[in-house]
Amino acid sequence: MNQTLPLALTMGDPAGIGGELTLAAWARLRAEGPAFVALDDPRRLAALAAGLGWDVPVAEVAGPEEAAAIFPGRLPVMTVRLPVPVSPGKPDPANAPAVLGSIERAVALAREGRVGGVVTNPISKATLYRTGFAFPGHTEFLGALTGTAEPPVMLLASPMLRVVPVTIHVSLRRALDTLTTAEIIRTGLALDRGLREGFGIAAPRIAVAGLNPHAGEEGAMGDEEPRLVVPAIEALRARGVDAFGPLPPDTMFTARARTTYDAALCLYHDQALIPIKTLDMDGGVNVTLGLPIVRTSPDHGTAFGIAGQGVADPSSLIAALRLAAEMAVRRNPEPAA
Amino acid sequence: MNQTLPLALTMGDPAGIGGELTLAAWARLRAEGPAFVALDDPRRLAALAAGLGWDVPVAEVAGPEEAAAIFPGRLPVMTVRLPVPVSPGKPDPANAPAVLGSIERAVALAREGRVGGVVTNPISKATLYRTGFAFPGHTEFLGALTGTAEPPVMLLASPMLRVVPVTIHVSLRRALDTLTTAEIIRTGLALDRGLREGFGIAAPRIAVAGLNPHAGEEGAMGDEEPRLVVPAIEALRARGVDAFGPLPPDTMFTARARTTYDAALCLYHDQALIPIKTLDMDGGVNVTLGLPIVRTSPDHGTAFGIAGQGVADPSSLIAALRLAAEMAVRRNPEPAA
Repeated sequence: MNQTLPLALTMGDPAGIGGELTLAAWARLRAEGPAFVALDDPRRLAALAAGLGWDVPVAEVAGPEEAAAIFPGRLPVMTVRLPVPVSPGKPDPANAPAVLGSIERAVALAREGRVGGVVTNPISKATLYRTGFAFPGHTEFLGALTGTAEPPVMLLASPMLRVVPVTIHVSLRRALDTLTTAEIIRTGLALDRGLREGFGIAAPRIAVAGLNPHAGEEGAMGDEEPRLVVPAIEALRARGVDAFGPLPPDTMFTARARTTYDAALCLYHDQALIPIKTLDMDGGVNVTLGLPIVRTSPDHGTAFGIAGQGVADPSSLIAALRLAAEMAVRRNPEPAA
Repeated sequence: MNQTLPLALTMGDPAGIGGELTLAAWARLRAEGPAFVALDDPRRLAALAAGLGWDVPVAEVAGPEEAAAIFPGRLPVMTVRLPVPVSPGKPDPANAPAVLGSIERAVALAREGRVGGVVTNPISKATLYRTGFAFPGHTEFLGALTGTAEPPVMLLASPMLRVVPVTIHVSLRRALDTLTTAEIIRTGLALDRGLREGFGIAAPRIAVAGLNPHAGEEGAMGDEEPRLVVPAIEALRARGVDAFGPLPPDTMFTARARTTYDAALCLYHDQALIPIKTLDMDGGVNVTLGLPIVRTSPDHGTAFGIAGQGVADPSSLIAALRLAAEMAVRRNPEPAA
């Protein structure tokens, strides 16, 4: 891998599985990379490794510039001190400033061009809300930190399938009520650009899902396809995007159908999430499109129920780190001086 | 396989792929069974075989009683004469009486106990509608033919997953508007009974899906889970059904999750159809629960675009025949005298 810069890996909620995933990801990637620097509390990571009996030496570093040389032998950590001790599975709002501080510093490093991208460990929205955190989630917070005008777009990527939902964390009824041609177009444009810039696909093919069973079957079951989706596809095509559809949602994710497109543009959360999680529960990566920085994350939550036991599967975080590194190289093909 | 009676296989739309699937299924099953009798036009089947260069000798029989002895050497056919010649890919309403007659005779044979069950080739609803056919589809027609009081329930079965949608061929908006606790309960009871009687599962475990992303996340995204789904699960459990949920729709179809239940009760068409078709496009079988007879069908349509070419995949029809035979044995464990 032609990695130009290390990645920044955030702490996530320290009571969740983020810490042990960070340790496990370092153990898996130390030899071949990509190198990363954790924005975390080095004492708590060292204590976690010791408690699990894992041989992960932790090295406090002042900046990401030190990370690459250290990485094969020790896990480089830029210190974000936790105000109170961590009890696995028991999130403490007193640590929220550190959780948010880790994200803020990672984003700052990316904007300064000192890291290739940001990979985030899972946070607990419920815990952050109790401290006054005013964003629906991670992605919107990153949008605000980077001054992004339009809402970022969530892409889920696995080796078998890439999907983007047009509506995300709203009820299914609200998804129907708020779906517009303009939002489908906006998301399609962000997806097209993300596939070109982040994934190196020169001419992305975008399959657009219908909303209704059998994509409405010529209007027999719902009118959203002719009313909302077809005009969006036409507008995207007029702007040079190779979008096609609307496709019957139930047959567009088969192995055969998946060979005909680079990403599926889906109209609601579960239309996108059911197929990708059914195909690949552990290897999926969440990619935020529409930010001025590279950002990926594992496609799971804090998993408080198993935190601290060393049993959490690091596959998704490792895939997120690898994908962020690939995207960073594509964005910055020349090594920084 | 301890087959007690042959199965009845209907013609389907003769301009579709049904005929060649019937020929291919016989070739695959002639040695090991299950035996079936086709309710079709023997001349058109013989001509189709000849045109494709397939060695499928056709034998006209008077009743299914002759089928078992003949089956290893010839394809047994009870004659349903087609009024006009068939042109593959071009459905002709003039043949509609034969299409419907084939279904009616198959159902009559099943009700008389002369066949173990009915397997139906795909019909063209649009073509039948032009002749005054007044049923939404195959399943409702079978309900009427057998005098079933309640609407039948559609189960899709593959070796990896069984799913039942509570609402089926309606727009997504209408699915939301018409979903009721009573319908979830009714469908859950039919599913529980079908799994016991048809699939031989003594204590079926039924996973019930939520409607909204993350099953509503404690009411943060939609209220249908506490308002509609939880009361249905409680009512089912009170009646002895091992139903549990509501589960987040996106994670309930992973390989790990699927080991925890025998069937998933889904709330709308694509919530059920996306995962099963994504996992197993060709091996899925449609099973109608709630009829007094065994009925299965392949999980695809007439495929007019490729009809007559001999390229259609018979996997789903063969799986439908095998499953119908298994279900028939369970319903009638003793061979008929």
